[in-house]
Amino acid sequence: MKVKEIMDEEFIYITQDQSIEEVSIIMENGKKFTTPVVDENMHLVGWITSFELTKGLREGNEKISEVMHSKDSIVHVHENNPARLAVLETSHNKFVSIPVLNDDGVVVGVVRSFDIVETLSKLYEIKVYKIFKAMEQELKGVSWDELMEASAIVTRRRTGENVTAEEYEFRIKEATFGEAIWATGGLEKFFVGLIAIGQLVTAKKVARARK
Amino acid sequence: MKVKEIMDEEFIYITQDQSIEEVSIIMENGKKFTTPVVDENMHLVGWITSFELTKGLREGNEKISEVMHSKDSIVHVHENNPARLAVLETSHNKFVSIPVLNDDGVVVGVVRSFDIVETLSKLYEIKVYKIFKAMEQELKGVSWDELMEASAIVTRRRTGENVTAEEYEFRIKEATFGEAIWATGGLEKFFVGLIAIGQLVTAKKVARARK
Repeated sequence: MKVKEIMDEEFIYITQDQSIEEVSIIMENGKKFTTPVVDENMHLVGWITSFELTKGLREGNEKISEVMHSKDSIVHVHENNPARLAVLETSHNKFVSIPVLNDDGVVVGVVRSFDIVETLSKLYEIKVYKIFKAMEQELKGVSWDELMEASAIVTRRRTGENVTAEEYEFRIKEATFGEAIWATGGLEKFFVGLIAIGQLVTAKKVARARK
Repeated sequence: MKVKEIMDEEFIYITQDQSIEEVSIIMENGKKFTTPVVDENMHLVGWITSFELTKGLREGNEKISEVMHSKDSIVHVHENNPARLAVLETSHNKFVSIPVLNDDGVVVGVVRSFDIVETLSKLYEIKVYKIFKAMEQELKGVSWDELMEASAIVTRRRTGENVTAEEYEFRIKEATFGEAIWATGGLEKFFVGLIAIGQLVTAKKVARARK
């Protein structure tokens, strides 16, 4: 996934000649705590956060140019960078947003932390049930009931918890991937549990074929 | 995972009698765009964002009580809520942060979107190699080389791409889980690929045992 796939293209931008008062109203109305400052060619020339606005209003500054962060101090990402890079910058630097530039240095978007949250959290919200349905399709010749039975057996072996196939099925219908990796103690353990289930049903299938 | 595990406990808070000027300086210094307003018992009574501050400064308001969001309008989460809930609220409502309350209505923390980004992105940064190493351990009696060979075969079958076991190993040493699910077309597909690999090595192991 690239930065351009998660960026906000409908971003607000301002120029350095605008007044601090005017920009504060624009940012309040647009509900933006940060915004890029651009020149007439949409090149990035500065960055404004609400902190510069409150300070500027308090201290009687007039223009955005008097209070903005200069271009050199701004962390930005390129539209074709991996989205991962924007994610890392956001969390490491505790930014709420980062400007996105294209090859010509033109500001083409802004990546915001809650957009990243939305993108990342989609994965966590996938139902475990969907993963098992995909597994059933892959494991040809294994019925859904056999898969649930094997899952209950593997769970009993690993956790000591006395769970039935029916209970297991009910559980995965409710559970999300995020909950499952938390419950099993991490991504690797979750996958390894699934591999163990896959092995068990395959072994049973082989045994059945031999009879 | 619970809300209290991802919240910031070292949050800034203010009272409604403080002046807007004073609070704007506190929030600039603490680099916070939002902050809870509490009473003497740390109960939540309001919420301030930078937008109320710029508006208040512009319009000549004095006290926080004149400009804050009232308690009724504030979305909050409980410290024992699933972290998922804070994640969903943050992305759906495009909040940068949400106050966290305990059973007594006391503000005990703030969940910030970049903290969520950090937590969520850790999962994406796990190396695929680690998943295969866990798989190797689970698939007893299967060597690492056999696992890589099977992985290359499954990849060739599924994508038509002519990849060798060595190339596959190199690839998973570099790739993260986030890149892998993107490359395979989704979580289910990634996982089903692993199940297919598990089946193939198991089949080979069984065939070897029969000889």
